[in-house]
Amino acid sequence: MKLKQLLGLRFKETPAECQITSHILMLRGGYMKNVGNGIFSLFTPGKRIMQKIEAIIREEMDRIEGQEVMLPVSMPASLWQESGRYDSVGSELMRFKDRNGSEMVLGMTHEEAVVHLARDAAQSYTDYPFMVYQIQTKFRDEPRSRGGLIRVREFTMKDAYSFHTSQEDLEQYYMRCHEAYERIYARTGIPEVVSVQSDSGMMGGKIAHEFMFLTDVGEDTIVTCTSCDFRSNIEVAECIVTNSEGADTALECVATPDIKTIDDLCKLFSTTADKTCKAVLYRKNESNELVIVFVRGDLEVNEIKVSNFLKEKVHPDTSTNTDGIEYGFVGPMELGAKATVLFDKSLVGACDLVCGANKADYHYRGFTPSRDLASQPEYHDFATTYEGAICPKCAKESVKICRGIEVGNIFQLGTKYSESMSMNYNDSEGNLKNPIMGCYGIGVGRLAASVCEIHHDDYGPIWPMSIAPWQVHICALRADDEQVSEVANKLYDEMLKAGVEVIFDDRLVSAGVMFSDADLIGVPVRVIVSPKTCGRGVVEVAARDKSFKEDVAPEDAVQYVKEVIARKLAELML
Amino acid sequence: MKLKQLLGLRFKETPAECQITSHILMLRGGYMKNVGNGIFSLFTPGKRIMQKIEAIIREEMDRIEGQEVMLPVSMPASLWQESGRYDSVGSELMRFKDRNGSEMVLGMTHEEAVVHLARDAAQSYTDYPFMVYQIQTKFRDEPRSRGGLIRVREFTMKDAYSFHTSQEDLEQYYMRCHEAYERIYARTGIPEVVSVQSDSGMMGGKIAHEFMFLTDVGEDTIVTCTSCDFRSNIEVAECIVTNSEGADTALECVATPDIKTIDDLCKLFSTTADKTCKAVLYRKNESNELVIVFVRGDLEVNEIKVSNFLKEKVHPDTSTNTDGIEYGFVGPMELGAKATVLFDKSLVGACDLVCGANKADYHYRGFTPSRDLASQPEYHDFATTYEGAICPKCAKESVKICRGIEVGNIFQLGTKYSESMSMNYNDSEGNLKNPIMGCYGIGVGRLAASVCEIHHDDYGPIWPMSIAPWQVHICALRADDEQVSEVANKLYDEMLKAGVEVIFDDRLVSAGVMFSDADLIGVPVRVIVSPKTCGRGVVEVAARDKSFKEDVAPEDAVQYVKEVIARKLAELML
Repeated sequence: MKLKQLLGLRFKETPAECQITSHILMLRGGYMKNVGNGIFSLFTPGKRIMQKIEAIIREEMDRIEGQEVMLPVSMPASLWQESGRYDSVGSELMRFKDRNGSEMVLGMTHEEAVVHLARDAAQSYTDYPFMVYQIQTKFRDEPRSRGGLIRVREFTMKDAYSFHTSQEDLEQYYMRCHEAYERIYARTGIPEVVSVQSDSGMMGGKIAHEFMFLTDVGEDTIVTCTSCDFRSNIEVAECIVTNSEGADTALECVATPDIKTIDDLCKLFSTTADKTCKAVLYRKNESNELVIVFVRGDLEVNEIKVSNFLKEKVHPDTSTNTDGIEYGFVGPMELGAKATVLFDKSLVGACDLVCGANKADYHYRGFTPSRDLASQPEYHDFATTYEGAICPKCAKESVKICRGIEVGNIFQLGTKYSESMSMNYNDSEGNLKNPIMGCYGIGVGRLAASVCEIHHDDYGPIWPMSIAPWQVHICALRADDEQVSEVANKLYDEMLKAGVEVIFDDRLVSAGVMFSDADLIGVPVRVIVSPKTCGRGVVEVAARDKSFKEDVAPEDAVQYVKEVIARKLAELML
Repeated sequence: MKLKQLLGLRFKETPAECQITSHILMLRGGYMKNVGNGIFSLFTPGKRIMQKIEAIIREEMDRIEGQEVMLPVSMPASLWQESGRYDSVGSELMRFKDRNGSEMVLGMTHEEAVVHLARDAAQSYTDYPFMVYQIQTKFRDEPRSRGGLIRVREFTMKDAYSFHTSQEDLEQYYMRCHEAYERIYARTGIPEVVSVQSDSGMMGGKIAHEFMFLTDVGEDTIVTCTSCDFRSNIEVAECIVTNSEGADTALECVATPDIKTIDDLCKLFSTTADKTCKAVLYRKNESNELVIVFVRGDLEVNEIKVSNFLKEKVHPDTSTNTDGIEYGFVGPMELGAKATVLFDKSLVGACDLVCGANKADYHYRGFTPSRDLASQPEYHDFATTYEGAICPKCAKESVKICRGIEVGNIFQLGTKYSESMSMNYNDSEGNLKNPIMGCYGIGVGRLAASVCEIHHDDYGPIWPMSIAPWQVHICALRADDEQVSEVANKLYDEMLKAGVEVIFDDRLVSAGVMFSDADLIGVPVRVIVSPKTCGRGVVEVAARDKSFKEDVAPEDAVQYVKEVIARKLAELML
């Protein structure tokens, strides 16, 4: 199309309240416009990028035998009541009532809908395995939308669901899907994406991976290892520490008036935080029951690990002096409180610690859990690992913490939904079984923004050929010059005929405006026609990423750019 | 793909509560499944049909310089408050509150969103005209969803919006869009669709057309003419009648105890309904103010005409004996009631009528409006036309009433939204102006169902080549036969390589099951491979619509079906 017809403003200024490059450039380049909190409209360049990403995803899903379906955005609440998630999911699930007062939800994920679709249709083991997917609008009422398309409330997502008759079959398919995801990221221009083990969160199931694009502007925390290939979301990365040996000091109760923090305790007792035992208090979301986690004083407790262990959500306890708790002085001995008490495994082998005495203004010193606890507790992994901690895979002190954007996730769901929603099949011996499910998601807009995060310069995005809004950008400088106009228009027509996706700028604007607009639109190949190039009998073909710049005879230009396009697309294939 | 992998049940029985053929066949053929009131999931065949229709629409919108964009499903209510529709649209607009208590709506149409997108980006007359469109999910909380995909609450719609600096430019573009719509209906296989003048309803604006697929199962009433090409929605078709001349009878008040219906009056006075004048009572929706419409007794008043005339919505009055009204005896003379009083033009030239006397149990006879009304009222068109009435175009008594499904609509919106939402541009003289808008909609699912309504037989849909879920259906009868399996598999592979969209049935089922499934899937070209055809050294190529059946050598089959596909597609082009 002609650039002068393209709707959308392009401008130089950084818009207010934008911190992330992709957000800034995609606003400055006329890709999108904010409609409300976490809700965007897309102009044509943004929409075209989305469609190209969707086409790549579609190809890769079809290649692993996916069947495209369409599940509704709006659903009766009864579907979510069947699975139990109508109650268990928080206010990110948008609930509303229709004109008849019927309760409804907006789909933020579609396990319920897909089980509803499939459960009558796959009643024999011979109908398995199968995978269905859709590319559809979703709504998630995020408390904090931010970063342009990185975290929004309404978004386009590819979600896929597979159904199996054995765990082995699921695992095999899960790996095929993992590979399909790697191809998707490679083809869209971000092969840097890595998969990490992750928490399955509200989805249920045990094994899950997130595909992470590592970047400082990411909002997820990733644990990697500098000596091996260990990678994990911090929510599931085991925290491994060693405890120094210490003297067999006697337990002693000491007055510690008004000393409530680990720092103050360390000063008072001239010790370090790893020689203390602290209590971290939570409440269960539903029952409000108290949960106390004891952990080595230098470590942090990970709330998600606690929730996963208890199989119910918890939140930090903010009350004071209830349930017989002496806040600030809570310790593992003679704890009279009515609470679920958990011990982190950082306390295994620890000795000579300072800990609370469950009495106002008193602490113990010389606490050695293996000696002093009346009955030995079970120790589990509740602490958050940290930079320099021991790698769970290679056992070296080489844990590294970095940030990432989650651009996809895959889950082994198990039978959570097929059981709760009574989806059954007859196995080869006539027994009723619940199919085993996997689910696989990619946010299309977030992927687009992530590509922009890595592929840009100071002047605008540099879109990979596979997802660029157009493949070629013709700049006719001085389109009022007869020769320029003739050459440029002929090229434009020929490229359209040759099936090249081309945008044509024949506005009578300065070279500066024309090129800065072209930079913001980020099309990978630029063809410049000007009185100068016409004088030389050529057009100039240049790469947006500055990797080449060539004079080409106008009659060879279409063939030339077609070869460039083919080469650039081939380079993106795994 | 292989049919045995396709998710979805196919069955013979007519599902309960289905009255419409497309609904029955699309359920029986595994195209879709009902999720809730007016909400459906689509299996792969249904989704593929939708995608093909969308691709055709996209091509035709791009051909008239449309720019594809994406507007959100969920929107802040403030956008709709700007245009005034947050209050003026009824409960079909789904309103809800997000986690922060902010009011939101689900998009049922996107005038507000598109003005929001475009208003900063088109500030100079040189930016005009332009058209943007999207293909997106919409939600309309219909009181009565019915007929499968014909009337649903959640649906996929193409909505387009054009912006112009003059009425002439809008009208020119409106005609181009009208032609694009005709191409869309032709290409999707229903060239029978006709455009009719229509009411612009809640959209605002004056000139509007609906594209109607005429069918007895339609829910819209269309007025056509048996002698000319007049076509109109009944809501805007002028009702033209002639009045017989009569004697100059004197006005006389007659006791008519308990006579309240036109029928009873006619009996009592030995006259016909066209010699009576009846009062039809409404209330204004907002103020509850009474509206009385006088009309010839044999005609019905059209509520939409009344609303359009008053520029506000009305509803039938259901109260009794209030506002000084003598219900059942309301007449145009000495009417003491506080009400807006309207006269239908069927009363022009009428004479010697029976009408209410505004007194319990009394009527007048001999009423002649031109003589007896104290002041002569304005007469307007409020009555509903009827079979045999006078055609507004050719003036013959040739009005025909039929039913139709609205499969598209186009509106000249004018400046309703650009004014209310302050969208301005500078004209060539530097004056601020509001752009003039048009909008253009097509429901994708309803179009799919309409195609099925016309293209089917007793055994299933007969999809046109352009939108069929696949182009070719290979039936391998006795796929356990080595030769059958070899020929069929080779054909399948070759067709995939040749880019033919093919579904392959190699299940070990009876010919009856295989063919009835193929009938339900409705793919236009069927290739049958069986021990018999192999014995003859051929495969059988047959049309789903029974228009041909040929024996073809296996090595020629791919070329043969490619030619059939090309021919069938060409036949659908206008």
